[in-house]
Formats: sequence, structure tokens, C-alpha cells
Amino acid sequence: MKNSFFSRFTPKEPKFFPLLKQLSEILTESAHLLEESLTHDSPAERADYYQRIKAKEREGDEQAHRIFDELGTTFITPFDREDIHDLASSIDDVIDGINSSAKRINIYNPRPIGSSGKELASLITQEALCLSEAMDQLEDFRKDPSKLRGCCTRLHDLENQADDVYELFITHLFEEEKDSIELIKIKEIMHELEKTTDSAERVGKILRNLIVKYA
Amino acid sequence: MKNSFFSRFTPKEPKFFPLLKQLSEILTESAHLLEESLTHDSPAERADYYQRIKAKEREGDEQAHRIFDELGTTFITPFDREDIHDLASSIDDVIDGINSSAKRINIYNPRPIGSSGKELASLITQEALCLSEAMDQLEDFRKDPSKLRGCCTRLHDLENQADDVYELFITHLFEEEKDSIELIKIKEIMHELEKTTDSAERVGKILRNLIVKYA
Amino acid sequence: MKNSFFSRFTPKEPKFFPLLKQLSEILTESAHLLEESLTHDSPAERADYYQRIKAKEREGDEQAHRIFDELGTTFITPFDREDIHDLASSIDDVIDGINSSAKRINIYNPRPIGSSGKELASLITQEALCLSEAMDQLEDFRKDPSKLRGCCTRLHDLENQADDVYELFITHLFEEEKDSIELIKIKEIMHELEKTTDSAERVGKILRNLIVKYA
Repeated sequence: MKNSFFSRFTPKEPKFFPLLKQLSEILTESAHLLEESLTHDSPAERADYYQRIKAKEREGDEQAHRIFDELGTTFITPFDREDIHDLASSIDDVIDGINSSAKRINIYNPRPIGSSGKELASLITQEALCLSEAMDQLEDFRKDPSKLRGCCTRLHDLENQADDVYELFITHLFEEEKDSIELIKIKEIMHELEKTTDSAERVGKILRNLIVKYA
Repeated sequence: MKNSFFSRFTPKEPKFFPLLKQLSEILTESAHLLEESLTHDSPAERADYYQRIKAKEREGDEQAHRIFDELGTTFITPFDREDIHDLASSIDDVIDGINSSAKRINIYNPRPIGSSGKELASLITQEALCLSEAMDQLEDFRKDPSKLRGCCTRLHDLENQADDVYELFITHLFEEEKDSIELIKIKEIMHELEKTTDSAERVGKILRNLIVKYA
Repeated sequence: MKNSFFSRFTPKEPKFFPLLKQLSEILTESAHLLEESLTHDSPAERADYYQRIKAKEREGDEQAHRIFDELGTTFITPFDREDIHDLASSIDDVIDGINSSAKRINIYNPRPIGSSGKELASLITQEALCLSEAMDQLEDFRKDPSKLRGCCTRLHDLENQADDVYELFITHLFEEEKDSIELIKIKEIMHELEKTTDSAERVGKILRNLIVKYA
């Protein structure tokens, strides 16, 4: 809200759009790595994928901080400062969720991840691609918000699908798994994956708010 | 803080009060459903209550977004925008906590929930009623904040009671429960219930800040 | 950002610095108690340390609220209101994490905490001391931010060390512990300790942002 008065009369500072787009690309790369990692089950391969995902997580962190630093020193921003801050930090949260999932797989070392886990990872990738498309819309959605609105709807649907996959899986797990340590491992890994799909939808909510405020 | 200057000279926009009150009523309905659900133990009944609580959770989400949308488009708000935002989103968090509790009961399907679980659910209902009363005070507490302050004190006491119930229960659980899968189920359900009582107190902290700022 | 215009021409309100320093001292005391508690293994001693740590947690809560109350009623603050708010509430989160760790030790009553747990507690103490030093820098870092920057770097390093200790420990735990209830206990206690080291680093990130904005 702070610079809404000035922003009507001064040129916008466009650098935030490519910075956010780059952050969403780190997210997509990280999601792809996670999905790929689930087809490899040896401790050594798991450790290797975790290192690569961790490297992406650090990249995401640095990119988010680059955005925060710019926010701290730029007088004119295309949206309110807090909106750009929330966008960057919520996209970074999705990257963190992917990292936490890979970390648990690495340190818990469960039996091979089944089809439900792979489905959740695929939903995370689809959400990441959706967010990346949404970043392309940021510069121009004021004129036509329909594409950005479409991204938000898809994010919401993907998250609902993830909920269903997760709930069905956990119900069966508690009915069938008798090895309690194996149950702990897979339950917590699936929970982390599901939380990651949630955090992607949270970005969608922030985008929806942007449409209400600016379009 | 942003509109404190203007707000001294312009009429307040009163629509936020009924919107927040409605949100607190969704919370109360949701808390009642949770409490009632604990007297039903079959998987089918648990699934049914979870569906009803999930419907409330969506209603709460929509109501919170209605409030956020209004905030994005209304120039004058009775308090600072961020205060109304925090109130709505923290009440929504309590509804989310109730939903997560019901979800875990449904998908974990533990043995019948004992008296400590019922006590926590009853404390959540009492907190919800307290918050609903607090919403009635929002319009006029500037003149006399004593009733609103009373709500905050009660919320704090209810949360302390919940802490004691939870801690005593978990201590006994780890001393006595030898079935590790059953232990996991009930431990996590109780933890979710306890976190929900915490989130209700967090609303109380926001209300306390409002008194300091505006009364 | 709000008072950056005025703050160039009016005297700063210095009371926030000692208030934040006091909060960091409550954190340090709390960290020392946690570290000390791990050398005592009987249920009675654990309960006693938890009570003392809980008392510190309440002190921290009150101190944070004192700061929030001041923020609500002071027109001029040395930084933006939200920065002081974030600092106080993030330091309070570290104190809360210490309290949650002590609570779990008390109510889960696991076997004696091993060397990795003690290492995490020691890292929390080192982070607390680091934050306390950082509070001494708040008044003057605009002239020379190098010392404050050094604190941020050390916090980051301490958190990385904690990550390594935690990950190695959990990997071994899942390889070796066959008692699933004991595994649950220690896994969750270690997780809480590790999250506490994370929350200390989060204060470091806020401090880093302050340097970017003000130095």
C-alpha cells in the first residue's frame, strides 16, 4: 500500500519480475530432482540426490535474499514491498519442503517409495510448473488477469488431489503396516511431501490476493 | 498504523465486524462437531464427521478470503489493515487445527478417544465461544476494554488447562502404552488437539495487542 | 519504512535496545538450563528443570509483550516497527523451542540423552551468546556493521553444524535402534532441538536484513 500513490506517476522498477521467475525455476529444477530421486533406492543414490537438492535449496535461499536485499534498497517496487516479500518467501518455502522431503528419505532410508509417494512428487512438479507460468504473468496481469487466475485454480486443484492421495495412503498404511519403525519412516516422508504441496498452494493464495488488489 | 491519521476524521467502515463475527461462528460450529465426533468410534462415523468438519474448514477459508478481499479494496478500515488480516487468519488457523485433528482421527482410526481427548476438545469449544464473545466487543472496546480483556484472560487460562491435560496424558501414555502403533496414533492426535488450543490463544494475543494500540 | 522520513530529523527512542538485550539474556539463561538439564536423567530432575525452563519461557513471553506494547504506543522507533517486532518475536521463538525441547524430555522420559543431544544443546547456547552479542551492536551498527555481520556468519555456521550432528544421529538411530517407542522419543526430542537451532538462525536472517536496510 505504501507506494501506491507514487507508483501511479513513476516508472515501475521491473527487475523483480526476472528475479522471481529465476526463483521459480530453481523450484522447478528442485522438484524434478525430487521426482527423479524416487526411482533410485540405494542409500548412496539417496545421499547423492539429497546433496543435489540441498544445493538447490541454498541457491533458492540466496535468490530469495537477493530479492529481499533489493526490496530493502529500492524505493519503487511494482507491487507493495510486502507482496513481493511474501511471494519470494513462500516460493522459497516450497523449495525448503522439497529439501526436507529429500532429507528425510536420505536419513530415514525407508523401503522403496511406492506409487503414492511418486504421485505426490509428480504433483509437486506440476505445481512448480504452474508457479513458473504464473511468474510470467506478473508483469501484465493487470490488463488481463485470466491466465494468472487460471494458475491459481490449477494450484488449488493439484493440492486437493494431493490431499486425497495422502489421506488414502495413510489410511491404508495404518491398516496394513505392522512394522512400526517402517510405518514411522514412510508416514513422515509422505507427510512432508503433502505439506510441500500445501505450501505451493499457499503461493497460489498470495497470487489470488494480488489479483484482487491490483487487477 | 497506516490510516491512523485519516481514521480520526472519517467514518469507520463497519462491515469487518460482522464478517469477523461470522468467521468466529464457523469456528464454534466446527468445534461443536469435533466434540460430538469423539463420542462416535466407528470408521464410517469418523469419516462422516471429518467430511462435515472439512466442509466447515472450507467455509472458514472462504470467509477469511472474503475478509482479505475486502481489505484489499477498502480504503478505510476500522483498525489497521494488518490487524484485521491477522485476526481473520489466526481465527482461520484454529478452524484448520480442528480440521487437522478430525482428519488424523479419520485416517489413523485409533481406539476410542479417552477422557483427556474429550477434555481437550471441550477446551477448544470453550475457546471458540470466548472468541465469539470477543468479536462482539470489537466495535466498542475502545470505550471500555474490560470485557475484551476478560476474554483474553480466559483464553490464556483455557490454554494453560489444555497444556496440563496434554502433558499429564502423554507422560502416562509413554509409561503405559506398549503397542507402538497405537501410541503413535493417539500421541499425534492429542498433539494436534493441543496445538489447536494454542492457536486459539494466539488469537487472544492479537486481541491483547489491539487493546494496547486502540483502547 | 514508515518513519524513515521522520527518523532523520528526530531523536531516536533508545529504550528498545535494552529491552531486546534483556530478552536475549533470558534466552541465554534458558539455553544454559537446557544444557545443564541433559546431565540429569531422573524423572524428578527432568521435571524440575522443565519447571525452571518453563518459568524462563513465561519471562520471555512477558518481555516480548512489553516490547510489543511499547511498539504500539511509541511514535518514533529506532527502526521500522515491524523490524523490532520481528526481532523480538523471533528471539522469543528460540526460547519457546528450548521450552518445547525440555517439555518433551520431561513427558517422554527417554533413556539418558547421548552426546549428540548434548552437542545440539551446546550449539543452542553458543547461538544464544551470539545473539546476545548482536543485541549489543544494534545501537551502533550503522557506523560499522562488521561486528554484527560477524554474528550473522557465526549463527549460520552454528546452524550448519547442528544440521550435520542431527542428520548423522538420525541416520544411525534408524539403522540401530530396534525399540520403536524409544526411537520415537529420541527422534522427536532431537528434532525439537534441531528446530531450535534453526530458529536461532532465523534471527540471524532478520539481523542480516537490518544491515542491508540501515547500514
